[in-house]
Amino acid sequence: MLKLGILGLGTVGSGVVKILEKNAENIKNKVGTEVKIIKILVNNLDKERDIEIDKNLLTDNAEDIINNPEIDIVVELIGGEQPAYDYIMRSIENGKSIVTANKLVIAKYGKRIFRKADENDAQVCYEGSVAGGLPIIRPLQNSLAANRIEKIYGILNGTTNYILTDMSKNKKDFDESLKNAQDLGFAEADPSSDIDGHDAAYKITILSSLAFERFVDVRDVYVEGIREIKSTDLELAHEMGYVIKLLAIAKNGNDGVDIRVHPAFIPEDHPIAMINGTYNCVYLHGDAVGQVMSTARGAGQMPTGSAVTADIIQVAKDINYNQREVQRMDSFLESNVTKIDEIENSFYLRLEVEDKPGVMAHIAKIFGDNNVSLASVLQKQKDNPVVPLVFITHHVKEKDLEKSLNEIKELDDVIEIKSVIRVENDI
Amino acid sequence: MLKLGILGLGTVGSGVVKILEKNAENIKNKVGTEVKIIKILVNNLDKERDIEIDKNLLTDNAEDIINNPEIDIVVELIGGEQPAYDYIMRSIENGKSIVTANKLVIAKYGKRIFRKADENDAQVCYEGSVAGGLPIIRPLQNSLAANRIEKIYGILNGTTNYILTDMSKNKKDFDESLKNAQDLGFAEADPSSDIDGHDAAYKITILSSLAFERFVDVRDVYVEGIREIKSTDLELAHEMGYVIKLLAIAKNGNDGVDIRVHPAFIPEDHPIAMINGTYNCVYLHGDAVGQVMSTARGAGQMPTGSAVTADIIQVAKDINYNQREVQRMDSFLESNVTKIDEIENSFYLRLEVEDKPGVMAHIAKIFGDNNVSLASVLQKQKDNPVVPLVFITHHVKEKDLEKSLNEIKELDDVIEIKSVIRVENDI
Ligand SMILES: NC(=O)c1ccc[n+]([C@@H]2O[C@H](COP(=O)([O-])OP(=O)(O)OC[C@H]3O[C@@H](n4cnc5c(N)ncnc54)[C@H](OP(=O)(O)O)[C@@H]3O)[C@@H](O)[C@H]2O)c1
Ligand SMILES: NC(=O)c1ccc[n+]([C@@H]2O[C@H](COP(=O)([O-])OP(=O)(O)OC[C@H]3O[C@@H](n4cnc5c(N)ncnc54)[C@H](OP(=O)(O)O)[C@@H]3O)[C@@H](O)[C@H]2O)c1
Repeated sequence: MLKLGILGLGTVGSGVVKILEKNAENIKNKVGTEVKIIKILVNNLDKERDIEIDKNLLTDNAEDIINNPEIDIVVELIGGEQPAYDYIMRSIENGKSIVTANKLVIAKYGKRIFRKADENDAQVCYEGSVAGGLPIIRPLQNSLAANRIEKIYGILNGTTNYILTDMSKNKKDFDESLKNAQDLGFAEADPSSDIDGHDAAYKITILSSLAFERFVDVRDVYVEGIREIKSTDLELAHEMGYVIKLLAIAKNGNDGVDIRVHPAFIPEDHPIAMINGTYNCVYLHGDAVGQVMSTARGAGQMPTGSAVTADIIQVAKDINYNQREVQRMDSFLESNVTKIDEIENSFYLRLEVEDKPGVMAHIAKIFGDNNVSLASVLQKQKDNPVVPLVFITHHVKEKDLEKSLNEIKELDDVIEIKSVIRVENDI
Repeated sequence: MLKLGILGLGTVGSGVVKILEKNAENIKNKVGTEVKIIKILVNNLDKERDIEIDKNLLTDNAEDIINNPEIDIVVELIGGEQPAYDYIMRSIENGKSIVTANKLVIAKYGKRIFRKADENDAQVCYEGSVAGGLPIIRPLQNSLAANRIEKIYGILNGTTNYILTDMSKNKKDFDESLKNAQDLGFAEADPSSDIDGHDAAYKITILSSLAFERFVDVRDVYVEGIREIKSTDLELAHEMGYVIKLLAIAKNGNDGVDIRVHPAFIPEDHPIAMINGTYNCVYLHGDAVGQVMSTARGAGQMPTGSAVTADIIQVAKDINYNQREVQRMDSFLESNVTKIDEIENSFYLRLEVEDKPGVMAHIAKIFGDNNVSLASVLQKQKDNPVVPLVFITHHVKEKDLEKSLNEIKELDDVIEIKSVIRVENDI
């Protein structure tokens, strides 16, 4: 029999308990022995739980798990940085293997955790940390291992994808769609980690390290969220044959990793453009395999529980058969992140200008002077002295664009630069 | 150092050689030691090869590999039943681990091969046998292991998907598209295994065994190919909001596995309907994870080479670190295949009838008498005494449909039943 201690009995923790119970027979078969939860850490012992659970299993003292010599595997599902990181490190020091869905901790401290695990002959599995139920961590570690992976694009946050889909399909504003997502349980009360792109940044950092075998500092990842996306932009995107998605991107370059999270225009016939609602996807390119795309629900109790429980099965099986998955993360190098202003991108720009002769000429001159060349221009007619003006640029250095926008802002006839959104045409 | 013997240096064998060479440094890092090809079996030593290869590596005597005590891993890429099966079994008896892309041998003899491998402490990996570069064998074995998988749908044959896409997009006939596929190297000179659905049947048999943990006899799988698909059917499908795909289906039932390969109408907004050209996809439903779909190129030198080489890396790593992946296939049960005439399906039917009053009434009566209820009827107006008549039925037992079609065929006014194609509405 193998003994589990679970840290946290919230959304995912409860899912794991349910799956371990429901599929117990089958899991026993796979592992070769029974897998039994012997302790669960919670914050509040008296809280009403939506699953039936033997009260004797619960504890509010982490030491009952971390320092429990009976426990083989610690499943960390508290979330957040501390005390989760501390509990993981101390459990490893005590020789326990770890299963976690904590993207923050893995993205930020992965290297230290893997080293500590190596020193202590422990395993660390984190399939649940990226894209919920979608199998991606292990495929990168094994089925795709023969490839040099060149780039990864992902929709890695279900909350923002739900909001953008809802805004676009139902012509809603951001605030309205956010509220809707919260009502439906797809967004948290404090949604900032999702909305502002940090959640996706942790996830793309994890994928990038595995795919390129280079660790980057998650704090260097350029992050831009979806708060500023207007339903006008979604409509204009649609008119021009695009959709807007919060995209996580990682490209392996010679000097560093181009890694970032930001809203992006994507051609509407691209497979990624079809991933709607709370679905996530990972789209990658390997030198041998070519393009591979996978999609599944990226969050939620059962999908994430599925990934976490799969890790539990794997680690339990390894322990039972005296095996140990060797990951060789020790050979991963540290890598720079390419600075965002060095990157070349296409841009969608929406300006509000006064309807006077000469405005366009002034703007065009500034673009020209700064090496910004235009792919298309759309001028919306309105019976109004204020006209919206939309540009899509060719590839330009971000710093050249920024310089021209700073100059354009100063033009008398330009009222406001409403939107600046990157366009991913060659995805 | 780990030593490989490769059986076969055709399309896939050459791909594996290329990848092992190109990514040698990276692979060495992953495995923890060098992986070296020391012998390659071919049929014809004098054949011109499209890769540069040291002639001393080649042999036309299989014993140089199978009975070579230096060789750790045998990579079987000859294809076909014999001598491939014999070589695999004898290599295992000699304690070697196997990597293969041979779907026929795994589908037909998997159980015996896995048992033999267990007895000899050898590993057998076959990621390349299904859907080329698409990671699916290992995800079923690990990332999705916590699920009860209920059903799998796949587009598992690139040749037929290319042909159907070409017929549909370019309004071509089957023969013309087949020839086009052959010219482009997407179909073999003898395309029957692809076209008639047998290739896909081997693959769905392999997926079904892993997903449901039940072995079925591949000879019991119902198989229907795409030779009879007319471009008229593709056009009518489009008019009614469907596409036609060669679908491989496996559903886990109480009494047996409903497993089959046949052309099917699929709603055109379903993700599977968007998989075009030589791409493959696997779409599955698990009780915890919900829907998961993956897509990649399902054949070809480099994608298949990617999968085979990934297996080589895994096995080599395991050997190097004294590990052994435990698959526990021994607990898989043998299972019946549900007889096709017991299955309920919707159908698309295209008839040619004489344009006389009463025909419809006669046909409708026969359907009614046989419990076949109709979802829609489409009558194409033509200035012609012969009119095409199209039906889509609700779910009916296949044997009820067959009985009514036999009766309808006998009607004086019915000239011919042109097409009978299953409709998968609740995919
Ligand atoms: N939710 C998802 O869909 C999802 C998807 C992918 C990954 N994840 C990751 O999975 C992890 C868990 O997420 P979740 O949504 O399940 O979180 P949650 O619902 O907030 O649950 C957290 C659990 O941890 C317990 N806990 C929190 N702080 C604690 C502390 N200091 N000491 C003891 N117990 C503490 C809580 O106890 P009480 O119950 O007593 O309050 C609760 O049971 C996070 O890393 C998250 O990023 C979640
Ligand atoms: N091609 C694909 O895209 C693809 C995709 C997925 C899976 N697969 C599977 O991969 C396997 C290999 O396919 P392939 O397309 O690479 O085949 P292939 O191009 O026909 O190559 C077969 C190789 O095996 C050698 N060979 C055949 N019979 C032999 C015998 N009796 N003794 C010694 N050598 C023999 C041939 O030698 P010569 O070179 O001297 O003729 C040739 O090098 C098959 O199981 C296939 O189903 C292929």
